[in-house]
Amino acid sequence: MSEIPKDHPRYASLLTREKIVEGVEIGITSQQGLVAQGRGECFDYLTGEQTTASAFLAEKVSVAMLLLAERPVLSVNGNAAALVPDSLVKLSDVTGAPLEVNLFHRTEERVNRIIDHLKDNGASEVLGSKADARLELQHSRGIVDSEGIYNADVVLVPLEDGDRCQALVDMGKSVITIDLNPLSRTSRTATVTIVDNVVRAVDNMIDLSSELKGLDEAELRKIVNDYDNSRTLSDAVRQMIRKLEELSDT
Amino acid sequence: MSEIPKDHPRYASLLTREKIVEGVEIGITSQQGLVAQGRGECFDYLTGEQTTASAFLAEKVSVAMLLLAERPVLSVNGNAAALVPDSLVKLSDVTGAPLEVNLFHRTEERVNRIIDHLKDNGASEVLGSKADARLELQHSRGIVDSEGIYNADVVLVPLEDGDRCQALVDMGKSVITIDLNPLSRTSRTATVTIVDNVVRAVDNMIDLSSELKGLDEAELRKIVNDYDNSRTLSDAVRQMIRKLEELSDT
Repeated sequence: MSEIPKDHPRYASLLTREKIVEGVEIGITSQQGLVAQGRGECFDYLTGEQTTASAFLAEKVSVAMLLLAERPVLSVNGNAAALVPDSLVKLSDVTGAPLEVNLFHRTEERVNRIIDHLKDNGASEVLGSKADARLELQHSRGIVDSEGIYNADVVLVPLEDGDRCQALVDMGKSVITIDLNPLSRTSRTATVTIVDNVVRAVDNMIDLSSELKGLDEAELRKIVNDYDNSRTLSDAVRQMIRKLEELSDT
Repeated sequence: MSEIPKDHPRYASLLTREKIVEGVEIGITSQQGLVAQGRGECFDYLTGEQTTASAFLAEKVSVAMLLLAERPVLSVNGNAAALVPDSLVKLSDVTGAPLEVNLFHRTEERVNRIIDHLKDNGASEVLGSKADARLELQHSRGIVDSEGIYNADVVLVPLEDGDRCQALVDMGKSVITIDLNPLSRTSRTATVTIVDNVVRAVDNMIDLSSELKGLDEAELRKIVNDYDNSRTLSDAVRQMIRKLEELSDT
């Protein structure tokens, strides 16, 4: 870790940055992932660095979908693994959805390092190393496990690439994404878009899982059926506009 | 370089990302700099990825200030060195302002690598390795050269940290920054804020230098005196709001 002066006004943000840099150093996050993290920081800043009411609703709907699913899967990339490994393991436990490592800049070595990292954080089994099926995509980012993402009915893809999100939706899957940019192709393509920082979103979803487990199937279906994702997206953009107006007045 | 599929809709942006990743690989850009690059990408996207009229005016005023200055300096950090080394050398040539390497995450090794990189791109002399003066700042980021930034009257600091920008202004210097976030502390503190991508800004400034060199001192002073930086900042925020409104309508 580099030395960051404690009196620096952006100390907390710089420290989070160090966490993801550490992910690169231990070989689980790609350097391109650092740039993606920066994009996220910017959108998070414009969203007020808090979970909005509409993001919380999207998190609730997502948990209901995962609990209703027959073959749910939680996809994990290098950034998610660096930022929230323990929370992803917990979310997998409470929803019964297995974890699958799935990378944009894929190398077998990095897949195995992330699997080990998740196991160090309490996971018993992690998919992603079989690589015996392909989504309809050029490039190694199409590689998946047949018993995982390939045959899943509901997939949570935090911080996903737009092409891959589209490919999953085209296969008829319900796709939940966590993406701070409400205007990205991923956000516009997903079934449910959680416009929130992955650090806050996954923890909220763990809490919501305990709460929603008390509901029956009809109640869970009602939560899912009443949801309108386009409203989530327009709420998020309006929130950013309000934040810019507010900041420019000060 | 990793393999990016040419049919990917964000091919150009991903390629720029590779350029800065290459900067890390050759030891001139810090990994924290990659995250900062990502923040910039986001704000650039919200500015429409083009030089706005008010950014162009700020570039013109900046060139006039550099031409009028007695001891101008162009500060260079790891991101600027990775993205626009050749253009910074050209801007130094046309304005007569020497280059000085000045890093937030400073190591002597990285300073020397960047000096060599700038020399490979045509620079004859680059300051920054003497490190014989200090700004009033904790941490190694306060280290500068006495014959460079320390005694300069006008300093261009592309992609600068807020604290350091403040320290330079407190010393009575005119500070020009290039920062895509019009709301950052750096943007609000600088004498002139160029809200533009450093890749476009430096090239524009090279062209403007040739143009403004034909003017006399009184004409240059008029350009500087007529300028209002707070208007640049509010224009940039309004531009982002318009872009968000436009994107959310489609």
